[in-house]
Amino acid sequence: MFNNQNRETNHLDDDRLFTSDPSQRTIARRLYDQVRELPIISPHGHTDPSWFARNEPFGNPAELFLAPDHYLFRMLYSQGVPLETLGVPSRSGAPATDPRESWRVFAKNYFLFRGTPSRMWLDYVFYEVFGISERLSLATADLYYDTITQALKQDRFRPRALFEQFNIEVLATTESPTDTLEHHKAILDSGWRGRVISAYRPDNVVDPEYEGFQSALDQFADITGEDTRSWSGYLRAHRKRRADFIAVGTTSTDHGHPTAVTYDLESSEAEALFQRVVSGQVDAHEAEVFRGQMLTEMARMSLDDELVLQIHPGSLRNHNQNLFLSYGRDKGADIPTSTEYVHALRPLLNRFGTEPKLTMIVFTLDETSYSRELAPLAGHYPALRLGPAWWFHDSPEGMRRFREMTTETAGFYNSVGFNDDTRAFLSIPARHDMARRVDCGYLARLVAEHRLHEDEAHQVARALAYDLAKSAYHL
Amino acid sequence: MFNNQNRETNHLDDDRLFTSDPSQRTIARRLYDQVRELPIISPHGHTDPSWFARNEPFGNPAELFLAPDHYLFRMLYSQGVPLETLGVPSRSGAPATDPRESWRVFAKNYFLFRGTPSRMWLDYVFYEVFGISERLSLATADLYYDTITQALKQDRFRPRALFEQFNIEVLATTESPTDTLEHHKAILDSGWRGRVISAYRPDNVVDPEYEGFQSALDQFADITGEDTRSWSGYLRAHRKRRADFIAVGTTSTDHGHPTAVTYDLESSEAEALFQRVVSGQVDAHEAEVFRGQMLTEMARMSLDDELVLQIHPGSLRNHNQNLFLSYGRDKGADIPTSTEYVHALRPLLNRFGTEPKLTMIVFTLDETSYSRELAPLAGHYPALRLGPAWWFHDSPEGMRRFREMTTETAGFYNSVGFNDDTRAFLSIPARHDMARRVDCGYLARLVAEHRLHEDEAHQVARALAYDLAKSAYHL
Amino acid sequence: MFNNQNRETNHLDDDRLFTSDPSQRTIARRLYDQVRELPIISPHGHTDPSWFARNEPFGNPAELFLAPDHYLFRMLYSQGVPLETLGVPSRSGAPATDPRESWRVFAKNYFLFRGTPSRMWLDYVFYEVFGISERLSLATADLYYDTITQALKQDRFRPRALFEQFNIEVLATTESPTDTLEHHKAILDSGWRGRVISAYRPDNVVDPEYEGFQSALDQFADITGEDTRSWSGYLRAHRKRRADFIAVGTTSTDHGHPTAVTYDLESSEAEALFQRVVSGQVDAHEAEVFRGQMLTEMARMSLDDELVLQIHPGSLRNHNQNLFLSYGRDKGADIPTSTEYVHALRPLLNRFGTEPKLTMIVFTLDETSYSRELAPLAGHYPALRLGPAWWFHDSPEGMRRFREMTTETAGFYNSVGFNDDTRAFLSIPARHDMARRVDCGYLARLVAEHRLHEDEAHQVARALAYDLAKSAYHL
Repeated sequence: MFNNQNRETNHLDDDRLFTSDPSQRTIARRLYDQVRELPIISPHGHTDPSWFARNEPFGNPAELFLAPDHYLFRMLYSQGVPLETLGVPSRSGAPATDPRESWRVFAKNYFLFRGTPSRMWLDYVFYEVFGISERLSLATADLYYDTITQALKQDRFRPRALFEQFNIEVLATTESPTDTLEHHKAILDSGWRGRVISAYRPDNVVDPEYEGFQSALDQFADITGEDTRSWSGYLRAHRKRRADFIAVGTTSTDHGHPTAVTYDLESSEAEALFQRVVSGQVDAHEAEVFRGQMLTEMARMSLDDELVLQIHPGSLRNHNQNLFLSYGRDKGADIPTSTEYVHALRPLLNRFGTEPKLTMIVFTLDETSYSRELAPLAGHYPALRLGPAWWFHDSPEGMRRFREMTTETAGFYNSVGFNDDTRAFLSIPARHDMARRVDCGYLARLVAEHRLHEDEAHQVARALAYDLAKSAYHL
Repeated sequence: MFNNQNRETNHLDDDRLFTSDPSQRTIARRLYDQVRELPIISPHGHTDPSWFARNEPFGNPAELFLAPDHYLFRMLYSQGVPLETLGVPSRSGAPATDPRESWRVFAKNYFLFRGTPSRMWLDYVFYEVFGISERLSLATADLYYDTITQALKQDRFRPRALFEQFNIEVLATTESPTDTLEHHKAILDSGWRGRVISAYRPDNVVDPEYEGFQSALDQFADITGEDTRSWSGYLRAHRKRRADFIAVGTTSTDHGHPTAVTYDLESSEAEALFQRVVSGQVDAHEAEVFRGQMLTEMARMSLDDELVLQIHPGSLRNHNQNLFLSYGRDKGADIPTSTEYVHALRPLLNRFGTEPKLTMIVFTLDETSYSRELAPLAGHYPALRLGPAWWFHDSPEGMRRFREMTTETAGFYNSVGFNDDTRAFLSIPARHDMARRVDCGYLARLVAEHRLHEDEAHQVARALAYDLAKSAYHL
Repeated sequence: MFNNQNRETNHLDDDRLFTSDPSQRTIARRLYDQVRELPIISPHGHTDPSWFARNEPFGNPAELFLAPDHYLFRMLYSQGVPLETLGVPSRSGAPATDPRESWRVFAKNYFLFRGTPSRMWLDYVFYEVFGISERLSLATADLYYDTITQALKQDRFRPRALFEQFNIEVLATTESPTDTLEHHKAILDSGWRGRVISAYRPDNVVDPEYEGFQSALDQFADITGEDTRSWSGYLRAHRKRRADFIAVGTTSTDHGHPTAVTYDLESSEAEALFQRVVSGQVDAHEAEVFRGQMLTEMARMSLDDELVLQIHPGSLRNHNQNLFLSYGRDKGADIPTSTEYVHALRPLLNRFGTEPKLTMIVFTLDETSYSRELAPLAGHYPALRLGPAWWFHDSPEGMRRFREMTTETAGFYNSVGFNDDTRAFLSIPARHDMARRVDCGYLARLVAEHRLHEDEAHQVARALAYDLAKSAYHL
């Protein structure tokens, strides 16, 4: 009923994402022209470092775009398309689905993405990377499949070539303390000049409720040679691994906790709590306290090694229990919840919030905290910076709301530029382009409304596109 | 001081509610031209079915517009006008107020509605239905009163004639399980072709805290012949009555709970709880659990009879206790409260959220849940759809915020078009027209900003105006 | 890196803050032309009455603008500038910093304020009050310092002359019940025609958790001659002091509580609670109950003396504990928190919410309450009015959101115009000008979108700029 299956053109307008008001659009173009070619700083994301270590060709469009990207398959699932139809692997492995058939189902349902950023990112990739100028639909599904599959066989579509073509100056992946970092070491050893660094994400050894926490603690001991079941050994293990990460270029840690809660316990209390944690006896509240204490411990370590501390709270993971049992994590069923920051961050901020060596970057999935909590906090504490509009809010309206609700209180210079936060490597230029356009559009409105001078807007546009990410993340 | 009482014109501009940016407005006109004449699907509302069963003329403007519409008298009350002055009936009956005097008070205070949707709806009705081209004010109060009173005596202003003139394809009213459905039966038996259906709203026999709950249970027994004080008899009574409603065209149930809480109890627990409910011994928490369990029971029944399940949570009813004691329910003193969905809906969604036979439509009065909770949930669970901007948010800004905060995550196709949700029959075309204009304006912005192709926007505009309501509600 | 230190012009565009859409801008200009010269009604603020009593010249720009204004120094602090560098006095007194050096640090970091209202207010003051047409930067820091310092020595820059030049019709300051009101009396006795009144802010004798509460109670006894440690004497003391305030022109009370909670206790309960309060034995919950009860007591007194009751809840004061210990209150570390109104205000509203003699004005720092709670409440209760966008939200985007989220439910006439709420006297015209422009811009959009007739918009613009503040505050 809803699906236009004609062969329409896929065209990227030069003015896309700028408002249509002529005076604003003219200013936006001028601002954007100064930043469109700046190198990409990607300080937070989830691409696979093995791609760049091995530099093997990607497979077909279904495997490349669809199966790993929960932004895409969640929408189709919400309209009744089974995940196996789309080639999404379950806990028992990849389904036997023909990838071309998966791609056709996706193409037929591509209309579902109208009005979403995924649609704009994909159209960008199809046009800019693969040069396809017809719109994706069932009618063009095979054209897309064949064109992309053929392209991926060429050397210039291998990961490293794309990295260079995308003008990426630095790309951060995310690994846990139990990761060997072998791919990052391989990249460094390879002589390739691409800068692919890691971020230290210790959730699996910090969160007592993480699946497999106890065995991760054992791995953590193996990889560090420390007694990770004694408090001092556990902390030393973190310091060692942070140093290992720094050796492969890491400049930040990352923490995906259910809430933003922090604690600042006495050392003896922390140690006693840790003993209950390692014995597997903590309840939900104690697990929360422990996670909160570990943020403060991480901040304390940052005073020495200067790793930037990122907090990504507020997602209730794996809301759909049956799906989790069959398919595991990251299947599009993580749902944001109301998230409090003012009381939650106070222990950590009161302890270290004015330390010149510390940079904390806080993200939110709860937009109500922008103007009420986060902008006032970031507009006060020297150590605190605001992460960009995140995940569900990494979208034109989401980024606009972020600027409108934070700038008047926190200014631009307590924000940190853009994060793409993606596992979809090919979408990185599309995402940065969208962010640059939306920011230039916002600045153009300020200029057109005489709230900012255009020469200042040029400086801000460059800061948002490049400078702030580089400085905030010590890159 | 504030009230201009000159005789100004009442004029409906063809471009009303479109943004004034010329390129957006031009696109919005084209989109709107394709949907303005589509029939009205009104799947959720509170008009009185006896109007269409009896087809008797309406009375005078005060009785027709003012006395029954809490959207209107609440505003005058907030500025100190007593309800009796406006002819609003109290628990002891209608006041002796002269309806012409009530109307004059309303007209004199009509300036209070500047900037509200009520103002735009009324101006539409006055102009489009009654042809009055002078603006309502004290100076024109009598002109209005006489013109409307005269018109209402004509056959073409009787309920059925208006229904046809309004191009209503289907209109749903709302009745409780203890309603006889006599008016709907009379409409069906009358041979009139107008499709007026009901919705099954069992609050009075599901909510232990509902005024008169115990006697409603008795009526429920009488009307079904079941033992509604045994758990199995009570559930059978629901199934019977749902079938009775289906026989008069019903396709949905509706649930106006204080919160969105659901439970999925073991059968024996549910039965034990029900026994406490019928004995009148439940406390506030148990009442909440019972309401939450009944949503899951209703979903279970929908797997068989396919009634669409609507959840309308989050209103604190009868906030003004003295007013409630004197005037009863629905007197403009229902106030929204913060409403949580992620944890609340989880038991029901984990039980039935992926059932192909189930459609759940969730509404909210808490706009903070749009982008944080509801769009992510609806963008994942196959059974879940987003109801439109509701009640206080059924307004130009409210509808715009709804689209801006849900579309990027849930897309358009997890929403269900428009609900007018009104007891003001004459305002139905005005409300649908407003919704169509606002949606076309939103789509025009996407097109003008090159975020959506115009051919796609045409399809979406039609879906939002007509197709989605029809399909989501199985109409 | 970010700071353009060229000598650019400081220019106030006549169309600033209007949208750039030509049709809206044209309408906005017409609306604004009718209100730009209206006198300023400033019913709520924190200027120092001694300025007007003594009429002594202000000092230098650092002392005048920077040291007292937490809007400004918080931003510099957030980027690592120590408060002593800026001349901000600590608990041990003013630092020995050279004010010219402080000013240079400020000027060098002025780029941090890009996109903030502070930047627009300051540019207005620099240009309109001091006639400086070069932009503030390190390069022009001395020019600014010298120009302003010289100007301040002239009689026409003394407080009373500026008051007159600013066209202020009435200015309210804020004093506690233990204040002598000497400055207000001196102003009245001086024969000067400027109307500088006070507002009765009893937090220090109402909030058991206020620093120095017990000694304030003693002062309260001294100044009233009442036994402020008996419930009846305490209440009489309030009534006496309210009368004293009324004698110097006061028309309102003001209450800065952590939450909006109200209670309506039985008299004996209230008395018993008060006895625990004066004995210093209350816990946090009892302190909350007492504050809540006192709001109801204040409302009861207002039925007699008709003082307007203002509630300013929701700020967690002194979030940064070390800073508080060193520097004391009001140092930019007050952070808003989630604030509930529906349950919180119910006891007071059920008691007095329909009293014709009572006007309650409620403010919020939690924008989520605008459309969900406050507009529905104000659109119902006769005694309730909505205070304007407050503090962090007194900004172009904040004021726009306020109108967009409250007008459709509460209308314009349940709002009360603008409050500048400032201790920065020179910024008052800038702030009112911003509010008038933003409101005219909002109204222009309604007119351009045919949601309001232009003749009505003119009336509303005047009401928002002048009439509503005057009537709501009984001025």
